[in-house]
Amino acid sequence: MTETWIEETLYDNWGQRFRVVKELARTRSAFQDIVVFESESHGRVLMLDGVTQITERDEFVYQEMLTHVPLFSHPDPKRVLIIGAGDGGVLRRVLEHPGVEKAVMVEIDGTVIELSKQHLPSIAQDAWDNPRAEVIVGDGIDYVARAADGSFDVIIVDSTDPIGVGEVLFTDSFYEHCARVLSAQGLIVNQCGVPFMQADELHDTSVRRARFFPQVSAYVAAVPTYVGGFMTLGIASKGESLAKQDVEQVRARARAAGLEGKTQYWTPEIHVGSFNLPPYIARHLPGTKA
Amino acid sequence: MTETWIEETLYDNWGQRFRVVKELARTRSAFQDIVVFESESHGRVLMLDGVTQITERDEFVYQEMLTHVPLFSHPDPKRVLIIGAGDGGVLRRVLEHPGVEKAVMVEIDGTVIELSKQHLPSIAQDAWDNPRAEVIVGDGIDYVARAADGSFDVIIVDSTDPIGVGEVLFTDSFYEHCARVLSAQGLIVNQCGVPFMQADELHDTSVRRARFFPQVSAYVAAVPTYVGGFMTLGIASKGESLAKQDVEQVRARARAAGLEGKTQYWTPEIHVGSFNLPPYIARHLPGTKA
Repeated sequence: MTETWIEETLYDNWGQRFRVVKELARTRSAFQDIVVFESESHGRVLMLDGVTQITERDEFVYQEMLTHVPLFSHPDPKRVLIIGAGDGGVLRRVLEHPGVEKAVMVEIDGTVIELSKQHLPSIAQDAWDNPRAEVIVGDGIDYVARAADGSFDVIIVDSTDPIGVGEVLFTDSFYEHCARVLSAQGLIVNQCGVPFMQADELHDTSVRRARFFPQVSAYVAAVPTYVGGFMTLGIASKGESLAKQDVEQVRARARAAGLEGKTQYWTPEIHVGSFNLPPYIARHLPGTKA
Repeated sequence: MTETWIEETLYDNWGQRFRVVKELARTRSAFQDIVVFESESHGRVLMLDGVTQITERDEFVYQEMLTHVPLFSHPDPKRVLIIGAGDGGVLRRVLEHPGVEKAVMVEIDGTVIELSKQHLPSIAQDAWDNPRAEVIVGDGIDYVARAADGSFDVIIVDSTDPIGVGEVLFTDSFYEHCARVLSAQGLIVNQCGVPFMQADELHDTSVRRARFFPQVSAYVAAVPTYVGGFMTLGIASKGESLAKQDVEQVRARARAAGLEGKTQYWTPEIHVGSFNLPPYIARHLPGTKA
């Protein structure tokens, strides 16, 4: 039997490879190369420009940490803006919060949404049809540039790495508009890569966010297919510092939302503890010694 | 230019690969296949039977967590037994603790020690020549079977996965002897694999350890080249439970030992927080619902 492997091309000298059961889609959209395949080890996998974005088996780690940490850190998130996240997994988790009145998702590549609906239905589940959801195929930069002041409580940026189509989501202009569009206690979260392999990404985006937000910090998650140890999620707040939260307060919030005991990675303890960065990561944040 | 890659063969359908600058050693010892190579991404890499054991760039994560967590959890560790760990990295970290009077290391494969001395000198540094160290090339099972009752305070098992030469380090007989050889507050730590890929390993060894130790728990570390999210380190104690430790007590211990601020991954906060397991891992421990 011939074996088929798909090798991630994120790093040119190290990486992961998946044995392929079946290739489900391979196309070039207006923005990027898209591949969806069934792997032997991780269920279905979505790759963009050769980089693993999501797998059915481990999506819960990234999605739970990207969603529940900001939504349980903000005192009362009602309006949530999601940039990217075309697979719908973040939208689904945001809508699990009963206090959220509106979730707007802006994904630039409609083909990612279509292929995700077709081949990865377990990730978004029925989120696409939720009346609190508004899904826009469009440019996230444009959207925040035109959105009204203070119109969102939380912005979740689920971008690719700062190469290709995602690059503009790491600019001063983008963060400046996000700060304006957020309400008084508003906060923004975005993935900042895997510092062991991409240390500059955390440093550079943290410096940028610090220009527009008084509170800038980061937390970690161990995502199985974002190989290289912890990935970091950068979080910036117009209100309180998020670095020292209280476990019991977070637990009370989760209980009130009906999410206590319903998660596979996120817990109140992990929420609070994820802001304790290992020194090899912490030294990339601005204001810490190198 | 032709490219050379070395692919890890731990899992037959998923894995990592390294681009090779130069192969430094490739041999078959009496126990296993050994390869040492210089990688582009991770410095020098040691593989045993096709499985990554250590790389120069990320060794600090595993070594610090495997050593400092047990040594700062035990009230007063003076005598430490290390099984395996032929690269010498655990021995080096154990000897960083000034309270340790004697560290005995028992590695079955002398060829691993020789090749590590020759090609990975940065990992053990000068630990081999420390007067408090005793390095034995021999069978760890035999050693614990013949060791006196209560003759060690901490046992650190740095084994391969429970296949090949490391398999006997996961047996009832081994754990029974370890419990006998440990002093009253003694504890043992051993790597239990990456639960996302090897869930049975954590479960099975935890069940075994629970037969001989009153307190069994586990903690996590995100080791870049043990791909698949968190790895777990199983820890079992004859004394106190280790699951809920106090950050300030741990910090005081680190300060007294002169290790505060000297680590790259381990911190008092990470030490205590690493016992908070994500639910997808916690459910593999005995006594938790599946």
